[in-house]
Amino acid sequence: MAPAVKSLEPGTLVNVVADDGRSFGTGYFNPASLIAVRLLDPKPDAEIGEDFFVERLTRALARRAVLFDKPFYRLVHAEGDGLPGLTIDRFGDTYSLQFGTAGMEKLEVPLLSALKALLSPECIVLRNDAPSRAQEGLKSEVRLVLGDIPGRLPLEENGTVYFADIRGGQKTGWYYDQRDNRAFVASLAKGSSMLDAYSYAGGFGMAAARSGAREVIAADSSQPALALAEEAAAANRVSGVCKFVKADAMEELERLGAANETFDVVVADPPPFVRAKKDLEPGAKAYRKLARLSASVTASGGFMLIASCSHNISMERFALECGIGIQRAGRTGAIIRQAGAGPDHPVHPALPETAYLKAIVYAID
Amino acid sequence: MAPAVKSLEPGTLVNVVADDGRSFGTGYFNPASLIAVRLLDPKPDAEIGEDFFVERLTRALARRAVLFDKPFYRLVHAEGDGLPGLTIDRFGDTYSLQFGTAGMEKLEVPLLSALKALLSPECIVLRNDAPSRAQEGLKSEVRLVLGDIPGRLPLEENGTVYFADIRGGQKTGWYYDQRDNRAFVASLAKGSSMLDAYSYAGGFGMAAARSGAREVIAADSSQPALALAEEAAAANRVSGVCKFVKADAMEELERLGAANETFDVVVADPPPFVRAKKDLEPGAKAYRKLARLSASVTASGGFMLIASCSHNISMERFALECGIGIQRAGRTGAIIRQAGAGPDHPVHPALPETAYLKAIVYAID
Repeated sequence: MAPAVKSLEPGTLVNVVADDGRSFGTGYFNPASLIAVRLLDPKPDAEIGEDFFVERLTRALARRAVLFDKPFYRLVHAEGDGLPGLTIDRFGDTYSLQFGTAGMEKLEVPLLSALKALLSPECIVLRNDAPSRAQEGLKSEVRLVLGDIPGRLPLEENGTVYFADIRGGQKTGWYYDQRDNRAFVASLAKGSSMLDAYSYAGGFGMAAARSGAREVIAADSSQPALALAEEAAAANRVSGVCKFVKADAMEELERLGAANETFDVVVADPPPFVRAKKDLEPGAKAYRKLARLSASVTASGGFMLIASCSHNISMERFALECGIGIQRAGRTGAIIRQAGAGPDHPVHPALPETAYLKAIVYAID
Repeated sequence: MAPAVKSLEPGTLVNVVADDGRSFGTGYFNPASLIAVRLLDPKPDAEIGEDFFVERLTRALARRAVLFDKPFYRLVHAEGDGLPGLTIDRFGDTYSLQFGTAGMEKLEVPLLSALKALLSPECIVLRNDAPSRAQEGLKSEVRLVLGDIPGRLPLEENGTVYFADIRGGQKTGWYYDQRDNRAFVASLAKGSSMLDAYSYAGGFGMAAARSGAREVIAADSSQPALALAEEAAAANRVSGVCKFVKADAMEELERLGAANETFDVVVADPPPFVRAKKDLEPGAKAYRKLARLSASVTASGGFMLIASCSHNISMERFALECGIGIQRAGRTGAIIRQAGAGPDHPVHPALPETAYLKAIVYAID
């Protein structure tokens, strides 16, 4: 990198030009990032202002309008929606935003103008507290830029009501990415006993309860997350079949296994075990252990979902580790579903690696 | 391979034993196959008779009972259901079977006994006409072993009625593998114009019409397949919005593109373009071309599904070729779904390569 280039301020808008003079378009630059440039527009010297964001948001909205009846979804999923470095989760008229790059953060003003012009939001929160921001030289903050945040915010997915804490919860407050996988698990859970390990605010567990599970145990180490799950149980009128256990999910799985307890449906949807490439081997072992412990508490003839939201493990490796874990539990089974995030998490056709979520459902013998 | 082993008759039951004497269980052997042994039971000297098949079929049925309300599904998906070399598709009380290996074909008698004991079928057809049987030294035949085959057999998927020709149609007569992808496409198609290229008996197209598409064109080179699709349109009361075009789908896509016609939803679900490993490069080019032609007839803001049922191309390569095809059409887009076959096509945890079906849905700008 030439010194003149290195001295550019992180997030500066640049034209990207090939050796032969051909233009790749307009993007933003960060000398400190492994991905030095991210393209915003195929035109050179494109004006990245409010009009640009109105166009991108309009397209993102049009896609979601076809997919969803209700205004609860990821509205912008970075590159997949032509806005690298930006995620926006929508909760009715409340929007939870995250800037992942210096380049996008510099564009806060025209983005917010466009969002306000297009959607008349009541509340906008910036959840700029992702650890990955440090690599971009960005500080960690949570900032309210419009309206008031309620303590908990209702949302609806597949007909089930949940509550999100968009100020204090994980990421932007909710994981819309598992929507389709939750619907699939719920379809298996009618009349079943179900264990939701790493339940967070009850995403899988409350869907299963609402679909007719006779018993749901939601286990999570976060008391505030379990409180949201309890509120969701009440709102869906399924409190009678739900139990909430504050525990490290891995330890709870071990305890249940030692007690020979089994469930017809088991879900284990942990935080990422492979946070960086260097963590691949220990992370892979952790997925193997999780699959082993989960399989050992799955009833014969039951079903088990294991998920990974780690960018840094491939579906192949993840499936391999889960397969070994099941075998080490002395169990056999078959994969009946391999899936990623729902359709409000579009992936750029040339960036398949941004498809970070992996979920495998096994029928366990 | 020792001469004594080579002289074993194809399909002979054998014990599989490691160098150190450890047993892997009971399987069947074929000296002519690249997969010399396929395991049936982890026990040595297991008796592979009616009881064995009753146990395997009971487990397969129990899995489907959780997944489906109606008796229309793949009942046995080879290794995934512990029965390598066997597929059974169920159409109510009619069963369409395919023996893919000499070992499984030798077990026809106890298998049929078990099927009859367990399910009291009205009709059983052996669709032993897959070209791959030649590699196993098996002849090609279609044989009725019980009851009478009606000219067309009704089935139901996602609430849509279809008709299958299980004697003369492709494979076992129907492709249950696309069930979930058809439901997804149907959810996008309300109020839309839709092109179903390689429609076969109308799987995607009739689902879209029933979900409220305002216009559906089903294109296929097979007049008998189109006749089944037309009957499905009538049964679902959507004949008024459906057109049926007898044409090579690739040529029809080219013709529509040249005429600047576009559709809100385009599906291209062709036969396998990569039938053998040596066909990878020409097959990959054919998928690229298909994606290019399909993208060029997809309206801006529309959706496109491209599928591959070729074992011999990976999801990565397939996605790459589709991405290039879209780019060559001068279009951009995002992947909103990457999926395989439905849950009645279970995959052995250690045999991910048996997950042959790949479907990618793009939002096209």
